[in-house]
Amino acid sequence: METSRRPGGRSARVRDAVRQATLAELAEHGFRGLTVENVAARAGVHKTTVYRRWGSAEGLISDALELAGGEPWPIPDTGGVEGDLRGVVQLVRSGFADPELGPVSSAFVAAAVQSPEAARALHDFFAARHDQSAEVVRRAIARGELPGGVDAREVIRVAVAPVYYRLFVAHEPVSEQDADRAADAALAAARAGVL
Amino acid sequence: METSRRPGGRSARVRDAVRQATLAELAEHGFRGLTVENVAARAGVHKTTVYRRWGSAEGLISDALELAGGEPWPIPDTGGVEGDLRGVVQLVRSGFADPELGPVSSAFVAAAVQSPEAARALHDFFAARHDQSAEVVRRAIARGELPGGVDAREVIRVAVAPVYYRLFVAHEPVSEQDADRAADAALAAARAGVL
Repeated sequence: METSRRPGGRSARVRDAVRQATLAELAEHGFRGLTVENVAARAGVHKTTVYRRWGSAEGLISDALELAGGEPWPIPDTGGVEGDLRGVVQLVRSGFADPELGPVSSAFVAAAVQSPEAARALHDFFAARHDQSAEVVRRAIARGELPGGVDAREVIRVAVAPVYYRLFVAHEPVSEQDADRAADAALAAARAGVL
Repeated sequence: METSRRPGGRSARVRDAVRQATLAELAEHGFRGLTVENVAARAGVHKTTVYRRWGSAEGLISDALELAGGEPWPIPDTGGVEGDLRGVVQLVRSGFADPELGPVSSAFVAAAVQSPEAARALHDFFAARHDQSAEVVRRAIARGELPGGVDAREVIRVAVAPVYYRLFVAHEPVSEQDADRAADAALAAARAGVL
């Protein structure tokens, strides 16, 4: 058995390999098809190691979400709140439409409606996303485009909600126009002092 | 074996018993715990009958959703669009908060993110719901509270989306105030000519 001079380094490599394997398995088989055995085989890690450290498919999902939540997100900066807010919503729409990213993101949502552990991880992921994206609203307030009392995170929630609602609740397609309209609706509500 | 003088009546009774058993099993165990065997046992119907007619847990879900979609929904009529739209969104919020109805409704959403057959059934269910609820917007247009070009179904989607987004995507609680604000935001957007 290899003994590393930097056990943290080896441990981090195992964790990264398992996370990458989890994402690949989710992309191919979704949450329903995610098993510790398949992830271990794909990562080249013994399955007892995966069971000991991640426990279950839910644990694998939670860890992968923690990784995703820490990744930087390209916050739009178009110089105006309308373009910025549309940019945020289009990022959500195009992410789910992406042939590689879409199935993984959808699997996260599916996992969270089935597993309380995954739901907690997704909650934390979205809390971070709301806070990051709210920067476009905070900038708009600073520029005087929106009143100072606006709840920046709530504007983000209301802007992106119709995209998720169509995809995961009503199971309707989402066009670019639908995404722009959702952003414009949130902006109109913020301007009207409702959010 | 009983021979009914009205075979349609017997068939309808079996269908109703299976649907009620499906709803009860969903309430207790969610979609993940829904099996043809348990539904058949609960309904007092032989499991081969259930397999032949409904095929699978997905088929049971789809049939139960068809029943739910046909049920009348108490469309609010407060005399004004603000109260009506808030009423629609509060119905959604309180439905999911209801200890009996909530788990079943949540199981439908969970089933649809896992099963294309359930997703089609939920799509049809929401199409019917949007059309029914849009009555409050059509009335507002008739009363001159909203401009004639407003997309009544889109106002409903935007109004209810934040409730579903909190419950099933971001996994955040939904207060009565959150629900009212979502309704008010959709109304402000409709008044601004965005929807």
